[in-house]
Amino acid sequence: MAANKKVRTQPPYELLYWPGIPGRGEFIRLAFEAAGVSYKDVANESEDGVKHILELISQDSTGDSDGNPPTFAPPALRIPGEGKDGKALVIYQTPSILSYLGDKIGLAGDGEAEKAWILSHTLTALDLNNEAHDTHHPIASSKYYEDQKEESLKKAKDFRESRIPKFLGFFERVLKGNQEQGNGKYLVGSKLSYADTTVWHVLSGLEFAFPQELKARKGDYELLFGTFYESVKEQSGLKEYLASDRRKPFSMGVFRHYPELDRQSTS
Amino acid sequence: MAANKKVRTQPPYELLYWPGIPGRGEFIRLAFEAAGVSYKDVANESEDGVKHILELISQDSTGDSDGNPPTFAPPALRIPGEGKDGKALVIYQTPSILSYLGDKIGLAGDGEAEKAWILSHTLTALDLNNEAHDTHHPIASSKYYEDQKEESLKKAKDFRESRIPKFLGFFERVLKGNQEQGNGKYLVGSKLSYADTTVWHVLSGLEFAFPQELKARKGDYELLFGTFYESVKEQSGLKEYLASDRRKPFSMGVFRHYPELDRQSTS
Repeated sequence: MAANKKVRTQPPYELLYWPGIPGRGEFIRLAFEAAGVSYKDVANESEDGVKHILELISQDSTGDSDGNPPTFAPPALRIPGEGKDGKALVIYQTPSILSYLGDKIGLAGDGEAEKAWILSHTLTALDLNNEAHDTHHPIASSKYYEDQKEESLKKAKDFRESRIPKFLGFFERVLKGNQEQGNGKYLVGSKLSYADTTVWHVLSGLEFAFPQELKARKGDYELLFGTFYESVKEQSGLKEYLASDRRKPFSMGVFRHYPELDRQSTS
Repeated sequence: MAANKKVRTQPPYELLYWPGIPGRGEFIRLAFEAAGVSYKDVANESEDGVKHILELISQDSTGDSDGNPPTFAPPALRIPGEGKDGKALVIYQTPSILSYLGDKIGLAGDGEAEKAWILSHTLTALDLNNEAHDTHHPIASSKYYEDQKEESLKKAKDFRESRIPKFLGFFERVLKGNQEQGNGKYLVGSKLSYADTTVWHVLSGLEFAFPQELKARKGDYELLFGTFYESVKEQSGLKEYLASDRRKPFSMGVFRHYPELDRQSTS
């Protein structure tokens, strides 16, 4: 009943992203799932879904017939009825999609200040996400890992030793500064936002890709791993999603587990 | 007279960014200059300005006494009077600052769709900006270029051969898709937006860092370099700024001219 109501009252959101992996599409999925808002995950839900993604990012496209500009890379969000003259609106770039959706699905906090901070923290988590990707592709994203393995070993060392503590320490401080309102459970204000789901997913990816490193460091960030990380995954909507087969396992996407790139000893 | 009026009617915006270089602060400066909105460039305008930046990003900070969260990295924007209970609001992350300012200073287009696309294109230009940075720091942003020069040569080769044409081709297609409204001068709609100033600055940085590569490629992107690039720098506000000493020259920031990283022959 509740689910039917959602379908009727929300626009028919369509997520356009590669099938089979969490990737950057996962940040959009988590926002919808946390908000309890239905969406169509086009490439995962249709046989020829990947065709839509390839069309979307065609190098010949100057935009679609609904007046939308070309898309640089997935994810994109298509919203029938919300574009020009009642046509479909298409938005690309993860933070832009989340910023657009935030208000509409109740994940952008209260007021202008919270809205801005939620976007800021999200961008910071996505920077960390990009840096995690670059540990296995420091030279060229279009080439194989095996062809840039030497450089990856160096990049991953710096990432583990300098970047991970810098980012984790930052999010720990954000939680601490918001502790009175957020109780360590929310980065901004007193309720869940898309900054929380975004930071949470990046942490889960780091745990997959760098399990030894995270094991050694988790204890340093009490609020982040002791409270926040455990709390977000228990949120209504997210809990059910994470237990479902809609949550794709990490494999060979942004987060990859190459043991040689992880910490070699936890002693 | 007009300048005085601006000071009285706009909040006293304060840009917090490293002095002496364009860097990521330049995207905020260009937006203010293009809009004709006054702002204080704190570190460039005061003797001990850099102290404010160091305070802002202190690794001990859990936020300021006005209730703002900590800042991960500059730039940040401080707006006295716009925070909680009339205190100062502080926002960090370039796209978050531009998104906040866009509507207020008239650089975010008309309507929700244009607003979203302007943020999307801006994020894409900032991705290109980051990739340009990584050509001279592919392994560790905290180490010297000289200590990662071998890797930089490889990274820069891929950047020049794969990434530059991918991004420039994309922006050319955006301009083409919007040609009816934008005449090749604007990426979205029929007037200047912060996407235009952001893409423009990245192009100017690429010209500084990779002059041979750009010289060889410019002809392939007729709208981007034939119309857009020349038009944006003539916009009222920007033209005066670019001729002033407020526009800092590129040097050793995001965009650096290492001849060995550029194309070695234009034949």
